[in-house]
Amino acid sequence: MTKPDPMAEALKQAEAAAALGEVPVGAVLVEMASGEILARAHNLVERDSDPTAHAEILAIRRAAADQGAPRLEGTALYVTLEPCAMCAAAISFARIGRLVFGAYDPKGGGVDHGARFFEQPTCHHRPEVIGGVQEQECGALLQAFFKARR
Amino acid sequence: MTKPDPMAEALKQAEAAAALGEVPVGAVLVEMASGEILARAHNLVERDSDPTAHAEILAIRRAAADQGAPRLEGTALYVTLEPCAMCAAAISFARIGRLVFGAYDPKGGGVDHGARFFEQPTCHHRPEVIGGVQEQECGALLQAFFKARR
Repeated sequence: MTKPDPMAEALKQAEAAAALGEVPVGAVLVEMASGEILARAHNLVERDSDPTAHAEILAIRRAAADQGAPRLEGTALYVTLEPCAMCAAAISFARIGRLVFGAYDPKGGGVDHGARFFEQPTCHHRPEVIGGVQEQECGALLQAFFKARR
Repeated sequence: MTKPDPMAEALKQAEAAAALGEVPVGAVLVEMASGEILARAHNLVERDSDPTAHAEILAIRRAAADQGAPRLEGTALYVTLEPCAMCAAAISFARIGRLVFGAYDPKGGGVDHGARFFEQPTCHHRPEVIGGVQEQECGALLQAFFKARR
């Protein structure tokens, strides 16, 4: 049996968010050694009345709770959109080893834009970062969502 | 009856965190018009196995859940330490009107240091910020905590 493609799984999560009327961003946390998926999540800000309920935060919180420790060494996080500064800092605090994201986010991103959190002297753990993976599919979901809401 | 002083309440929260072996940071969210305290919280990263369980995030999540909406307009957040980039972004997303903090945090802060989140073009809501309030008391708690752990 082949391992599921993490970014394809993250895209499924983003689609599930859109179906709920949430901003369509999905995230999947993977154990790097085995490829096993440890957590899947999507935005739930509106449903949960929680401004911090971004896909990345929810995936990190679930996986950390499951393993009973606040640090997630040896994991990779796949996200359909460039994380914001909140999520970038959470990724760093969780000691995640690799961040793979889809679309770039010039308006709200905190990795390649704005805060550029991982480049700050106040950042004490920097994951390997790979951006622009399946960028078109990831961005198209967001564009369709915001176009339909205008 | 006089209203409780929010920073004094935040300091009590920080002391409660220290008693649990958590980094002693406390936060209190106040309704600006009435002075009513909407949420009190302190760090619970270790106890909850949650790298995002900073005092500010927990106070925001509780108040937003209580009111059934992800935005907390008309509120002020009192924190004993300069918020990190994660918490600064969460404060912005929650549309908090005023941030009052105690000690400055050159190593990990995200307001006056590092990411300086509120000064970024990717920040779409900037609270009024007042830093250095009861700075000595707030900082002393942290210094004593880290000194005892060395």
